Amino acid sequence: MLSFENDYSRAAHPAVLDELANISTNLYPGYGSDDLCEQAKARIRKVCAAPKADVWFLVGGTQTNQVVIDAITPAWAGVVAVESGHPNVHEAGAIEYSGHKVLTIPHHNGKMDAGELDEFCATFYADGNFEHMVFPGCVYVSQSTEYGTIYSKAELQAIADVAHKYDMPLFVDGARLGYGLTATGCDMTIEDLAAIADVFYIGGTKVGALFGEAVVFTHHGDAWSGTPKHFLTQIKQHGALLAKGFLLGAQFDALMRDDLYFTIARNANVAADRIREALAAKGYTLTFEAPTNQIFVTMDQPTIDRLSQHVRLGFTEKADDTHTVMRICTSWATTDDEVNQLIELL
Amino acid sequence: MLSFENDYSRAAHPAVLDELANISTNLYPGYGSDDLCEQAKARIRKVCAAPKADVWFLVGGTQTNQVVIDAITPAWAGVVAVESGHPNVHEAGAIEYSGHKVLTIPHHNGKMDAGELDEFCATFYADGNFEHMVFPGCVYVSQSTEYGTIYSKAELQAIADVAHKYDMPLFVDGARLGYGLTATGCDMTIEDLAAIADVFYIGGTKVGALFGEAVVFTHHGDAWSGTPKHFLTQIKQHGALLAKGFLLGAQFDALMRDDLYFTIARNANVAADRIREALAAKGYTLTFEAPTNQIFVTMDQPTIDRLSQHVRLGFTEKADDTHTVMRICTSWATTDDEVNQLIELL
Amino acid sequence: MLSFENDYSRAAHPAVLDELANISTNLYPGYGSDDLCEQAKARIRKVCAAPKADVWFLVGGTQTNQVVIDAITPAWAGVVAVESGHPNVHEAGAIEYSGHKVLTIPHHNGKMDAGELDEFCATFYADGNFEHMVFPGCVYVSQSTEYGTIYSKAELQAIADVAHKYDMPLFVDGARLGYGLTATGCDMTIEDLAAIADVFYIGGTKVGALFGEAVVFTHHGDAWSGTPKHFLTQIKQHGALLAKGFLLGAQFDALMRDDLYFTIARNANVAADRIREALAAKGYTLTFEAPTNQIFVTMDQPTIDRLSQHVRLGFTEKADDTHTVMRICTSWATTDDEVNQLIELL
Amino acid sequence: MLSFENDYSRAAHPAVLDELANISTNLYPGYGSDDLCEQAKARIRKVCAAPKADVWFLVGGTQTNQVVIDAITPAWAGVVAVESGHPNVHEAGAIEYSGHKVLTIPHHNGKMDAGELDEFCATFYADGNFEHMVFPGCVYVSQSTEYGTIYSKAELQAIADVAHKYDMPLFVDGARLGYGLTATGCDMTIEDLAAIADVFYIGGTKVGALFGEAVVFTHHGDAWSGTPKHFLTQIKQHGALLAKGFLLGAQFDALMRDDLYFTIARNANVAADRIREALAAKGYTLTFEAPTNQIFVTMDQPTIDRLSQHVRLGFTEKADDTHTVMRICTSWATTDDEVNQLIELL
Repeated sequence: MLSFENDYSRAAHPAVLDELANISTNLYPGYGSDDLCEQAKARIRKVCAAPKADVWFLVGGTQTNQVVIDAITPAWAGVVAVESGHPNVHEAGAIEYSGHKVLTIPHHNGKMDAGELDEFCATFYADGNFEHMVFPGCVYVSQSTEYGTIYSKAELQAIADVAHKYDMPLFVDGARLGYGLTATGCDMTIEDLAAIADVFYIGGTKVGALFGEAVVFTHHGDAWSGTPKHFLTQIKQHGALLAKGFLLGAQFDALMRDDLYFTIARNANVAADRIREALAAKGYTLTFEAPTNQIFVTMDQPTIDRLSQHVRLGFTEKADDTHTVMRICTSWATTDDEVNQLIELL
Repeated sequence: MLSFENDYSRAAHPAVLDELANISTNLYPGYGSDDLCEQAKARIRKVCAAPKADVWFLVGGTQTNQVVIDAITPAWAGVVAVESGHPNVHEAGAIEYSGHKVLTIPHHNGKMDAGELDEFCATFYADGNFEHMVFPGCVYVSQSTEYGTIYSKAELQAIADVAHKYDMPLFVDGARLGYGLTATGCDMTIEDLAAIADVFYIGGTKVGALFGEAVVFTHHGDAWSGTPKHFLTQIKQHGALLAKGFLLGAQFDALMRDDLYFTIARNANVAADRIREALAAKGYTLTFEAPTNQIFVTMDQPTIDRLSQHVRLGFTEKADDTHTVMRICTSWATTDDEVNQLIELL
Repeated sequence: MLSFENDYSRAAHPAVLDELANISTNLYPGYGSDDLCEQAKARIRKVCAAPKADVWFLVGGTQTNQVVIDAITPAWAGVVAVESGHPNVHEAGAIEYSGHKVLTIPHHNGKMDAGELDEFCATFYADGNFEHMVFPGCVYVSQSTEYGTIYSKAELQAIADVAHKYDMPLFVDGARLGYGLTATGCDMTIEDLAAIADVFYIGGTKVGALFGEAVVFTHHGDAWSGTPKHFLTQIKQHGALLAKGFLLGAQFDALMRDDLYFTIARNANVAADRIREALAAKGYTLTFEAPTNQIFVTMDQPTIDRLSQHVRLGFTEKADDTHTVMRICTSWATTDDEVNQLIELL
Repeated sequence: MLSFENDYSRAAHPAVLDELANISTNLYPGYGSDDLCEQAKARIRKVCAAPKADVWFLVGGTQTNQVVIDAITPAWAGVVAVESGHPNVHEAGAIEYSGHKVLTIPHHNGKMDAGELDEFCATFYADGNFEHMVFPGCVYVSQSTEYGTIYSKAELQAIADVAHKYDMPLFVDGARLGYGLTATGCDMTIEDLAAIADVFYIGGTKVGALFGEAVVFTHHGDAWSGTPKHFLTQIKQHGALLAKGFLLGAQFDALMRDDLYFTIARNANVAADRIREALAAKGYTLTFEAPTNQIFVTMDQPTIDRLSQHVRLGFTEKADDTHTVMRICTSWATTDDEVNQLIELL
């Protein structure tokens, strides 16, 4: 059956699987202390134009959010995120499990507004009782967001400026970074991101890897962008240190070679653009305007019933009594043929 | 200087201090395993008409909220509260520190609406991804609320019914229980509360005691209202077990004798009613309509400046550019003379 | 360079890699809700002769210990383990991070003694202050242990009996389960293990998989052996839920086919037996008598210096001023040729 | 009935109760931001000859240990204590609840040995796997100890030196500080303690107060002795911030006046010395040699049976099949008459 259910439903890009096959008889030391990891880290530093950056490999997105946020947020503080942010909604309380509150502000099609962040912090510090409240301790955004939207360079810089004004690092969740940075209209490169964010990650799970997220502490030279002390121990403490770290090194080594990561990410956006065009032509209602691999469409029940006989679509929520928001999600692996079939069905 | 800043600015009611003086040369075993505690618990069971209730004494409100919520909420769940709820705003993240998320719904003058609670839970369980989200695990409300408002018996029963429908205990924060239950227009007695809530507490800190909150697990006979297993150990684990537990027993023994607790609580409401009347007469704007010991008034700056030379008022937040919400708070200890002085100043 | 450093230095068994290649173009739903996982679980239930067992797949060992122990241990309790137990020593405090104390008793070549466990618990409950102490809440042992030793069926049954006597589940860490159950002299099968333990795991990371541990709640029908409520949510809360759960299903499906898991595990023990024989013949001192894939040898410095020019050995600790304990570790991937080379060098 | 069960069985010294009575009609601001607290802190700084010291008031001992240890210990680290240390044994896992492991080394009559601490840390950092282990992050000792023994100035300085060598603060639990510093043979003053420790507390609960512990961050000018950032918020986050902080200020103000704290503490030691003398004369076996208010005696059952008809003794543990360790505990409130009665009974 055709599926546009999500972007983690296929194993990995052939180049990644080949790389794993190639190294499968080699012997490597454990926990990421191997040459493959070193090589992949060097590639990442280079593509980010961030020679001082410190790179770490983790397994999954929620895990990475939990480990990084816990490590960069002071004990007395929480993480500021938009209400629709993944750690606030779909991580089963992983942040609170680590002792921190998620402090929420409104989202705008999934995005944070720098001005509202500023107002939130200003209000906090102006409150006579702020010492009895949870301090804003770091800022979390994602690129692309939960709703497939993207930040412009100026928007992200503005958020970083506010974060720094209130002594907070800016953490960018890049579970879908490839899709964000290669979207039509995105004015930001990974170099830009590395220059703006204090820590971010390059998502592998959803962009060509079997699994894996590459966390980059950018080490701008300021107080926020350095690596948390004894970070390896903190990763282990969260149960997040992969024994065969070389598997992560191998995958990111393959993905970062010859621009593969961005090339395959772009494929998803191209496919999504074609679908968006078809949806528009056929009079469908897009729930959000967004240029990346996630398309949210508000459909009526007969349409859903008809489509669901032929194609699996993703996440749904009720829009009103007779309409539902459906997600069409492309990926690095989506083929022209699959897109054609879907368009035919629409 | 005159002060209406809060309801915990004086030590304790003379009867409480006398009781402590009376027992001061006696020897008691530790950690609440003494006769004074037993006697006070018996009085509480009696006044609540809840012969099976299990009573525990803790020191303060945030502590009690943290210990009770942590003990009654499953690991995979959070506590549902209104946005203005004390644990969500003014407990420095004590709930998240214990690993649980505070799941918020809107407040209405500080109160939770049973229908909205129902909708929140229904939406949660209708979401295809609910297993990736924080389950609603218990319900927290306060009587009286942060804004001095009170629940009617029917309103609280409706909330309890929804809580139970979704397999959650209802926990009622009674830091200001005396003020709530003796307010003009309150149609609920402590017997009613004990019949509706699964666990609640009788606040001592703000109603006549030096310190102390009496937690009542009501043991209705259903699954929610029992005492958490090894609760003493859980209290100790939170650092909340008072060595000289008999001090708590002695205070509640005094407060629960001859209706003292409610008598002195009523005093605060009578004083507040007189102030409200004067405010109305003088054209002040009440921020909320509320019948208990907390009066929120929206004042302009000249008024605030004038008053602040003679009287300390409480908690403030900006209403708009030229107005501020001020709190006038009476207590069990407020005298007629103090009220007269304040009214003169208004 | 030759390496006997550890048992997780090679990627995966060819059959596992083939399986991943075979499924690489298929589409699967996320988070383990796929057919591959179902199929692998069915195989595991069958090999365990435990038709009611509930199987879950996690990524790594420390993660599995943290998630399982946290889920099966009450809030007021800790996990009882021997002093040398992995969660007590080499998990960076992952158990304490989840709020539980590791309660330690002495080890005997890495093993727990049922009598000492009984005495520990009896002493605990006989202490007048036990409510001020951390309750023993579950029992953790590993098969094989940190020192390569194994429990007999009778020994493990005795530990289970004591655990149940004190109302605790028995959790068996099987990170090296294959090596334990196929060791010369082991009188226990995986069916026996499933009949004795309340929860255990089949380690994949060290026995042929890229990564992965299969957790088995045995569901004996008693109170201890069931699955913790909302376990998926608890896994997610720990950041431990793999998006592409089908990768775990695929690997265990391959490993559990045609007895592959045990066949390749046995290879490591055969290799280790040959090395042990050679060590004995050459007069080396074994630090522990143990029949599995880990050989601990107490060596003097000149020997270590000589060997380290040609072969990487594992974990070391000082035995005395002139001797060090070295670990020779074989694995499912160790070849005859590697063993021959090592024996030559000894 | 006569009782030597513990040192927290009476309410408070008359001077403390008088002070509370004297201030009972005054109005104070909340949370310790009052003049009484300021005054008490000034007295403590003076008696400690530590003008830069920062003083905080908490309610109880386990609470203080949890809050302070959590605040001064890095996320990746634990607290080093002797096996018999209170946080390791009798705090229901309050330290682990806050996420930190208690790293134990042997005790010698309740005391830590600086050399063994050094060896523990040296071994830790010499271990090739130390990044997978819990770092030693702070050092906890108590003065006097769980067994009533005391550290000499040189012993405590040696422990501080080792702690600092490994980048750890030294935290001294002074729940029984008065009894420790006024014991016969103690060569240390509170000035000495303030010069050696990085943080310590002056126990009120067991020495004349209703409740309360005064935490002193000594601010020696090095990295360890400063106040943790946003400590008030961290206290609140633990549920440990007393609303009526002025009650703590008032009590310590009374205790620190005219040397009252040490005068009444000395009373307990004098009483204990008399009892020890009588025990020796009558041929009893002291379990530990210790000069403070706790006397541990190994008794046979007939003796225990006889005594228990007339006097309550404290904490017991089995010494062997026919003997038990009993605790005779004097306090600031023990009278000559009580001592005479007890000696008569022995």
